[in-house]
Amino acid sequence: MVDHNERRILNTWQRNADSWTRAVRDGTIASRQQVTDQAVVDAVPLCQVTSVIDIGCGEGWLARRLSESGIVVTGIDATHALVDAATKNGGGHFQCLNYNELHSLAAICGAPFELAVCNFSLLGESSTETVLAQLAALLQPAGRLIIQTLHPAECNSELPYQDGWRQSSWDGFDSTFTDPAPWYFRTLSSWLTLLRHHGFSMQKISEPLLPSSKRPASIIFIATLTP
Amino acid sequence: MVDHNERRILNTWQRNADSWTRAVRDGTIASRQQVTDQAVVDAVPLCQVTSVIDIGCGEGWLARRLSESGIVVTGIDATHALVDAATKNGGGHFQCLNYNELHSLAAICGAPFELAVCNFSLLGESSTETVLAQLAALLQPAGRLIIQTLHPAECNSELPYQDGWRQSSWDGFDSTFTDPAPWYFRTLSSWLTLLRHHGFSMQKISEPLLPSSKRPASIIFIATLTP
Repeated sequence: MVDHNERRILNTWQRNADSWTRAVRDGTIASRQQVTDQAVVDAVPLCQVTSVIDIGCGEGWLARRLSESGIVVTGIDATHALVDAATKNGGGHFQCLNYNELHSLAAICGAPFELAVCNFSLLGESSTETVLAQLAALLQPAGRLIIQTLHPAECNSELPYQDGWRQSSWDGFDSTFTDPAPWYFRTLSSWLTLLRHHGFSMQKISEPLLPSSKRPASIIFIATLTP
Repeated sequence: MVDHNERRILNTWQRNADSWTRAVRDGTIASRQQVTDQAVVDAVPLCQVTSVIDIGCGEGWLARRLSESGIVVTGIDATHALVDAATKNGGGHFQCLNYNELHSLAAICGAPFELAVCNFSLLGESSTETVLAQLAALLQPAGRLIIQTLHPAECNSELPYQDGWRQSSWDGFDSTFTDPAPWYFRTLSSWLTLLRHHGFSMQKISEPLLPSSKRPASIIFIATLTP
């Protein structure tokens, strides 16, 4: 069941890669335009970091943005078409890799990295754990991790507040998007326990607000690898 | 305005001390009975701690419970009638103190404490900061802090998700309760920033669930004083 859901996530991105690239580049995703893109950029200490790994980089907008500050960005994504789109627009070194192959980056340019960023890219259960389990080997001592994800408080308060797979939809996206995949909901306490289990201590949490409702558009965890 | 609200909190407890003592001792507060009393006890590492300061101890139930495990508990509360009620039932050393007088406990039996517990007792703005500012002097090196409070995610999702004073009510309590005081809402990120500012790093967050709705009854921060 779990593996089936993880596979569905990968399939969805393959199927919707072109629509996604268009939506990001045309700026049609309101919450990203209004809040969350800038929020994750703001979370990166631009002046203090020179090498970043962007895990689940998609079509590469964040790498391009960070590279403007002189940061060397390595972007990885499991979807070929997204990596191809990222490579075409430059701003980083992009590679098509499944999340369980991250460790193979330990020897490349920029590694060990000062910072790993996962911007709305930890959508599964075992795949998220797989990423976190490999980060210690990819990051410098006291390396940082930034995760932007859905705010647990804002995810359907009708449902039990418990870890588990949830249905998603492409509501708000155009009709070219198909086959939404399930995603794995984690409570706040579950996120913290998971991060701690993999050697990270929480430095800060940000909760950027939607300008209209003043409710959180996302949550951003900023954590540091502890010895 | 702020001082006015802090005063209203103190006045409310003075006015409702007897009703409160009765409600706690008769077990008529459902969320406490079902979830949050046991949750805060579970957060205390009973076998590893010998001295605890219970800040805002009220009529003393938590001190009594912890003392059953051989822990020496000092309870402080700003409301005379509650401290009197606590003293009568024993289980700890109780003292009537305002939150800004905490530092005077540095020399008493049990200090420096291994653990400070604030169980639904940080209700104000400046008064909460006052407590946290004095804890480093009261706790042992690497001393622990447990705060149980309202879950930011469950506090009226109609309102902006921003720090600020909010109205409360005695809904669900009997008609002897009067004059509900305002309380100071803090976002999750605000709690973390505040704790960090006062030298605490987050070890764990717990979110005990109401058995009926499976939604969080509270949030519990477990933090450690860092050098």
